[in-house]
Amino acid sequence: MKLPLGFRYASSYAGIRKIRKDDLALIVSDTPASAAGVFTRNRVAAAPVRLCQNHLQESGGIASAILINAGNANCATRTGAKVALASAKATARLRKVPVSQILVASTGVIGVELDPKLITAALPAVAAGLSPENFEAVSQAIMTTDTRPKTAKAELSASGGVISIAGMTKGAGMIMPMMATTLGFVMTDAAIAPNRLKAMLREANEESYSRLSVDGDTSTNDTLLVLANGASGIKLSNRDSDVFLGMLTKLLQDLAQQIARDGEGATKLITISVEGAKTRDDAARIARGIANSPLVKTAVAGSDPNWGRVICAAGNSGVAFDPSQVDIFMQGIRVCRAGLAAPFSEDALKAKLDEKDVSIEFVIRNGGPGQTRFWTCDFTEDYIKINASYRT
Amino acid sequence: MKLPLGFRYASSYAGIRKIRKDDLALIVSDTPASAAGVFTRNRVAAAPVRLCQNHLQESGGIASAILINAGNANCATRTGAKVALASAKATARLRKVPVSQILVASTGVIGVELDPKLITAALPAVAAGLSPENFEAVSQAIMTTDTRPKTAKAELSASGGVISIAGMTKGAGMIMPMMATTLGFVMTDAAIAPNRLKAMLREANEESYSRLSVDGDTSTNDTLLVLANGASGIKLSNRDSDVFLGMLTKLLQDLAQQIARDGEGATKLITISVEGAKTRDDAARIARGIANSPLVKTAVAGSDPNWGRVICAAGNSGVAFDPSQVDIFMQGIRVCRAGLAAPFSEDALKAKLDEKDVSIEFVIRNGGPGQTRFWTCDFTEDYIKINASYRT
Repeated sequence: MKLPLGFRYASSYAGIRKIRKDDLALIVSDTPASAAGVFTRNRVAAAPVRLCQNHLQESGGIASAILINAGNANCATRTGAKVALASAKATARLRKVPVSQILVASTGVIGVELDPKLITAALPAVAAGLSPENFEAVSQAIMTTDTRPKTAKAELSASGGVISIAGMTKGAGMIMPMMATTLGFVMTDAAIAPNRLKAMLREANEESYSRLSVDGDTSTNDTLLVLANGASGIKLSNRDSDVFLGMLTKLLQDLAQQIARDGEGATKLITISVEGAKTRDDAARIARGIANSPLVKTAVAGSDPNWGRVICAAGNSGVAFDPSQVDIFMQGIRVCRAGLAAPFSEDALKAKLDEKDVSIEFVIRNGGPGQTRFWTCDFTEDYIKINASYRT
Repeated sequence: MKLPLGFRYASSYAGIRKIRKDDLALIVSDTPASAAGVFTRNRVAAAPVRLCQNHLQESGGIASAILINAGNANCATRTGAKVALASAKATARLRKVPVSQILVASTGVIGVELDPKLITAALPAVAAGLSPENFEAVSQAIMTTDTRPKTAKAELSASGGVISIAGMTKGAGMIMPMMATTLGFVMTDAAIAPNRLKAMLREANEESYSRLSVDGDTSTNDTLLVLANGASGIKLSNRDSDVFLGMLTKLLQDLAQQIARDGEGATKLITISVEGAKTRDDAARIARGIANSPLVKTAVAGSDPNWGRVICAAGNSGVAFDPSQVDIFMQGIRVCRAGLAAPFSEDALKAKLDEKDVSIEFVIRNGGPGQTRFWTCDFTEDYIKINASYRT
């Protein structure tokens, strides 16, 4: 599948990480692109997050480049805002665009000053290496302790031709280790007005990154950006817009699933489906309650069809439901019927739970129209090993 | 320290647990006692929880006995309510009191039918063994995978004589393993009217059991009961009431701390203090956010002074605060000042974090009057080992 037209990528080692591995990456659109972002709701938002929010507002949703560094989150430091702005300004000068068209993102240790000279010194070499070929290289440069890069691509045959969309993301790893930041970058060559792109991203995010949890801890740096540069020459019709939104949602779900699957210490991707809640929001709260329960996640790690933990976690979600109307399925096998134990072969189900993809369905009978899916991973001893190690 | 007058205790093996260890326990007051309880807010509340709530209402807050079983939570079963009622009726007949004066509590596996005959058959022998001496035996009979029994006692020199109070609790363990239920039972020989006792319990609970988390999962069976039988012959004056409330709160905090310290896989008790929030409720939300963060808990396990995870968890609590006004102390050493890294000796602090008691203080400067304390434990590989094992 081809990458979206009009985007170029580059990365290099700027000396921010302790190990010699690319840690500075640049994504540029050859022409100013419509841009939209969703960001961490953590009260302690990092400087790059605030800069993105300000720039997207100032520019009216137009961006020309995204500068990303790994190895330092540029968060909770004295100079955070200055460093983010200096990096953006240097990028703007090189790209000859207004500084408000530059977005920045950081991931890595927090509370440690980031030397802006490392970035400004390395930036010219990075910019010189810009190429459509370096998409995969950038997806590797933004990794922290991710065990593999995470990318997804899609194409849409719209009226007028083919539109491409490509995304990359990172997360669920820690380099120092500190915060497991999620970053996501999506490029498309469709022509979409900024406001429309923003609305689409919000809706697609609601069913993808907002339905993802590895450990319930929201980072200070979470950032998901979409750029639409129109390089395909194709403007979306209304009908194509709906199809595009579906494609964007699917692509973001693909990336979110890759993060869950690569969650710290994870051996299994867990997909939680909730049906029959009053609203989609209620469904999401129930799903999140199940996904964040350490007891559910450890049970899945041990291939234990422990549906009691599932209904207990749902009961703690704050959503009102009648337990006697609940059916629970694991790997498609009914384990709880009308709130009570359903007969099933324990051995057969345990064997199925050893698979790398585990599904949990939580169905409220005679319930409302609210439904959703949510992705998480199992909880293993390796999660503890990764996170209990000394920071330095 | 002497136990409260007018209470007797007994326990026996009724065949509910798989291993031969007392699993049925009875606490009686020789005269009807004022009684109050706080219960799980889990939507999937177990049958014994509902029975207690009903009986406390019917009796106007009077109870004569508490029947407790371990090995089966009597939750999410077809016959749960019937079994709880049959057990209460059998106890009422033996004790010759109205059934509404009987409270019941269960802990163990959920979703498995509990045979009421096991209880009614064993009950006469249990009742025959009632003695003031068996307080410790009952505190052992209610254990699941707790590694040690948890009791606390206190005395108050009131005007008129000495009042005694004694409590026992269990939790943070699983026998099958299923839900880590918290049960707590407190006896006092003070004379306190039911409504006053209820108000006192609610307030004391707010600063003790409501400030406790091992893993963020609220059980279906959590129950905390207080009986005040007046056997000391002493009615509390208004001033003594305040002192008694303080004593009750301290006793419940003691029990709650014992649960956290014995949390699954725990090696350390973590005490989180929050100051400078707008309200006590805000302080509690921040503290709970920190206490439930797997990243904070694994950092403490690894003796890592990783304050970035602390401020990040607080930022996710949903409470508004200015990060630039936050100081964080670990083991009394300032690690974050005004939201930024404070200078400290990493090696010295790591050594201090190896201790069994870890304190984290989160202070909002120039903030409001809201403050609280919260107890949790560190998160180790043993938590995973305990909970990922097969249920059967």
